[in-house]
Amino acid sequence: MQPIPTFTNVIEGAERIKPFAKRTPVLQSAWFNKQTGAELFFKCENFQKVGAFKFRGACNAINKLPASEGEKGIVTHSSGNHAQAVALAAKLNGYKATIIMPENAPKVKVDAVKGYGAEIVFCESTIDAREETAQQIIQKTGATFIHPYNHPDVIAGQGTAAKELLEEVPELDAIITPVGGGGLMSGTLIAAKAMKPGIKVFGAEPELADDAYRSLQTGKIEPVLRTDTIADGLRTSLGELTFRIIQSHIDDLVTVSEESIIRDMRNVWERMKIIIEPSCAVPVAAVMDRKIQVEGMKVGIIITGGNVDLEKLPWI
Amino acid sequence: MQPIPTFTNVIEGAERIKPFAKRTPVLQSAWFNKQTGAELFFKCENFQKVGAFKFRGACNAINKLPASEGEKGIVTHSSGNHAQAVALAAKLNGYKATIIMPENAPKVKVDAVKGYGAEIVFCESTIDAREETAQQIIQKTGATFIHPYNHPDVIAGQGTAAKELLEEVPELDAIITPVGGGGLMSGTLIAAKAMKPGIKVFGAEPELADDAYRSLQTGKIEPVLRTDTIADGLRTSLGELTFRIIQSHIDDLVTVSEESIIRDMRNVWERMKIIIEPSCAVPVAAVMDRKIQVEGMKVGIIITGGNVDLEKLPWI
Repeated sequence: MQPIPTFTNVIEGAERIKPFAKRTPVLQSAWFNKQTGAELFFKCENFQKVGAFKFRGACNAINKLPASEGEKGIVTHSSGNHAQAVALAAKLNGYKATIIMPENAPKVKVDAVKGYGAEIVFCESTIDAREETAQQIIQKTGATFIHPYNHPDVIAGQGTAAKELLEEVPELDAIITPVGGGGLMSGTLIAAKAMKPGIKVFGAEPELADDAYRSLQTGKIEPVLRTDTIADGLRTSLGELTFRIIQSHIDDLVTVSEESIIRDMRNVWERMKIIIEPSCAVPVAAVMDRKIQVEGMKVGIIITGGNVDLEKLPWI
Repeated sequence: MQPIPTFTNVIEGAERIKPFAKRTPVLQSAWFNKQTGAELFFKCENFQKVGAFKFRGACNAINKLPASEGEKGIVTHSSGNHAQAVALAAKLNGYKATIIMPENAPKVKVDAVKGYGAEIVFCESTIDAREETAQQIIQKTGATFIHPYNHPDVIAGQGTAAKELLEEVPELDAIITPVGGGGLMSGTLIAAKAMKPGIKVFGAEPELADDAYRSLQTGKIEPVLRTDTIADGLRTSLGELTFRIIQSHIDDLVTVSEESIIRDMRNVWERMKIIIEPSCAVPVAAVMDRKIQVEGMKVGIIITGGNVDLEKLPWI
């Protein structure tokens, strides 16, 4: 079993990524405050490098590697923001990154990863094929595999977002994040509960990808059953490490409908003038639909990323 | 002739609007820096109240009125951001606002103004009809007319954006704003040249609405000849007051094509994850197309607003 990272690891991670990651702004919206009766603080990781919080975790994990390891290369499989995050973090260290992507990955995502100088290896679109391809590369080159969430250094890196948010708004009563593989939620739990023991930390998931909700009910990791939620960043199941952390510390986890996700994605675009991915709208929908009671509270919401295809908006 | 506002008026304006207006963030983009060879600082007035810098000027002008005047009401004609700005600034003071809008104004804009509690009076879509309607209301009620740009207090209010920008980034070599009626440019010139006498201040216009460019050439106010630029906030001609200020102080004014405006509107959305109106992309296009030479310089760009119809994006 991998060790659970500590708040000390988050603090070390913050120092490690400081020269590379952005300290993203915290925005507020009078309209959302009025709608929810709460005071909401949006931590804008859509403005982070590569357009997503994922850069924090990848940068922490890769920068922590001894050069002798890093020089053998970095490998991961992802067609999402983690791919770009690993590609950029490797490039900043002068390491070679190999990203395994499914053959049917959208060209725009492939190009983004190539733009950061990574090599792309295509494989069949199954988990087995991806993991086998990764193993082959690791055996041949000695490259280090960076898991997108089930990795202590990745989790500690993701926790730096909540650390910055609580440094800027120490009076928060609660923080809400979306839950996909659970890396951001795990890092947030570790940072927030250490910095402010009384704080509530809530998770939100799409109804169509409610694996974490079901996992908390049954007490074991339940798989994602379908992959058609519009919140494409949240289509993954929890890992062994993230499940252990979330199970021990989370205050509540709720699910929201696809309609609510699209509605509040658009509301954020229209009212806050920021571009967010569908995944970011999941915690927003949770408070707008009163799935989480926040009236009268000061609540932080981590806006996870802003990488969307501007040709295809879900409301058009 | 109306008096030219001074930097003291801008400082007073900043104090006056402080409890109501947002101090908007300044964002940077590694991608735009690389593309331009400059260091660009985007002052995000798309995050301002009502989604545009226009709130600064309207708030300054309306809050400066003696209550005995304000209580007779506020009137303006606009179908754009100034309408919302006047409506909200009046509401915050408990004054009645009447906004004259053309009969063919888009429903979304009408609803936005109504949302701030203003009364809307429709009239024919000609300047004569609007001004006559305004005069009728003023004569009947004694309401105060707040011009969208040719007004000393509005100009002083708009100047507070450049003041904040230079307070945050005092090392700027230049500031660029779009030029429509010239209120923002006038306020920026007054603030920037007072705070930092050596600074350059540049303007940018659509080729299809190059009235300010032509006015500087001929030495008199030239009208806008067509109103089909996508940059809908820049379809107005200069006023007597804004022309005097701009003519005396601007360092250069350039024009950009519609194609460049759409290209860089999309680039800002994609790279910076912020929603900007087409008008905001005009200064961005000016530096991307090397119409203004900025290589090696630190350059502020005022992002003027983020009110766009999310159903109709110009690149789809």
